[in-house]
Amino acid sequence: MDVAAPLSPTARSTIRRGARRARTDRAELYAVLDAGLVGHLGVVLDGAPVVLPTGYGRVGDTLYLHGSTGAATLRAAAAGQPVAFTVTHVDGVVYARSSFHHSMNYRCAVVHGTAQLVTDPAERLRALAALTEQLAPGSWTATRQPDRRELAATAVLALDLAEASLKVRTGPPGDDERDLAADAGPAPVWAGVLPLRTVLGEPEPDPLLPAGVPVPPRVRDRALSWPG
Amino acid sequence: MDVAAPLSPTARSTIRRGARRARTDRAELYAVLDAGLVGHLGVVLDGAPVVLPTGYGRVGDTLYLHGSTGAATLRAAAAGQPVAFTVTHVDGVVYARSSFHHSMNYRCAVVHGTAQLVTDPAERLRALAALTEQLAPGSWTATRQPDRRELAATAVLALDLAEASLKVRTGPPGDDERDLAADAGPAPVWAGVLPLRTVLGEPEPDPLLPAGVPVPPRVRDRALSWPG
Repeated sequence: MDVAAPLSPTARSTIRRGARRARTDRAELYAVLDAGLVGHLGVVLDGAPVVLPTGYGRVGDTLYLHGSTGAATLRAAAAGQPVAFTVTHVDGVVYARSSFHHSMNYRCAVVHGTAQLVTDPAERLRALAALTEQLAPGSWTATRQPDRRELAATAVLALDLAEASLKVRTGPPGDDERDLAADAGPAPVWAGVLPLRTVLGEPEPDPLLPAGVPVPPRVRDRALSWPG
Repeated sequence: MDVAAPLSPTARSTIRRGARRARTDRAELYAVLDAGLVGHLGVVLDGAPVVLPTGYGRVGDTLYLHGSTGAATLRAAAAGQPVAFTVTHVDGVVYARSSFHHSMNYRCAVVHGTAQLVTDPAERLRALAALTEQLAPGSWTATRQPDRRELAATAVLALDLAEASLKVRTGPPGDDERDLAADAGPAPVWAGVLPLRTVLGEPEPDPLLPAGVPVPPRVRDRALSWPG
């Protein structure tokens, strides 16, 4: 249910630095998550943080993660250790008139919480479908779904989006007045934004694939819904 | 000194899952780091992980981070808490004949260690130059450098690249024999890679900039050295 209830941050999910960039619209949080391919999962192992990229899928206010049952980070998360999960889109380089005000335009969703190991077989399948569709829309139904052995090797975790925050920077640099004043001088310094976006290349068939197997629409016509 | 000594992983930086994707060439680590704009910094605050995107710069085997002196994550890192810093490039979506073997092509550098607060004024300037140049090559000398007040507001941290690991996936899916066998059947499932890359858009001048200020070569001719 994509009901756009406002984000209700706890102390931990309240943005302190650059609070003017905080967003509180749950629909915006969903949009940033849905536009991504990987997030960075943080867990604490032996007292030290570990941060690894991982795919994900979202169903309503639940974020699903998966991985090998043997992965130490997933095992720690499944054991009830607190986790952080961060999805970042870099949208542009912000060139300012001073080095200090150089910046990036970005959208960043941060989720804190405790993940639950999903054990219900039906929910596990829904989660794996969401994960597959996030990575490769259309692939869950177009390809062979996991068998018993593959399912047994896969841990699925659910992370509630209750404790989430969203930070977005857009627009030109925020230069100081003194530097803006130099715009009228003999050598104004260029300032502005160099946008970045991710694009898809030409599909590269598996060399093992027989010649003549067409690229299916789910691949050929895939639209980029992320950084645009 | 970009001397390509091999990576010498500790227990913590030894890749256990997917060990065949581990790389041990320090030059490759440098290349992956140098091709990025942001990494994800993990620290432990009140027993829970916090993962935030942040810019960085590299000088030899030192990774520099910076931020506001008031940022809780930087303060924890500066106080000697262990940190993780991860830079990930997603290079493609790997479409397999089964959902289980769907994957991503990527390059991921993970650094573990304890950051040091940099206090030497000359090293701080070198670090800020590296950070600025990583984000916006040419900007350190072309724009106003930080003044005393800006420097006082900026914490600079150094993270040694001694304890780092690199994981890279390239190439087509690793499908099972049984799924490959179905290629000869009546309805072969397409498999392959959909490459992703980041591209630069047209520079967008700051609306405050006087008309006619040309886009400088450092922006106009910027070459993408990241995901290619």
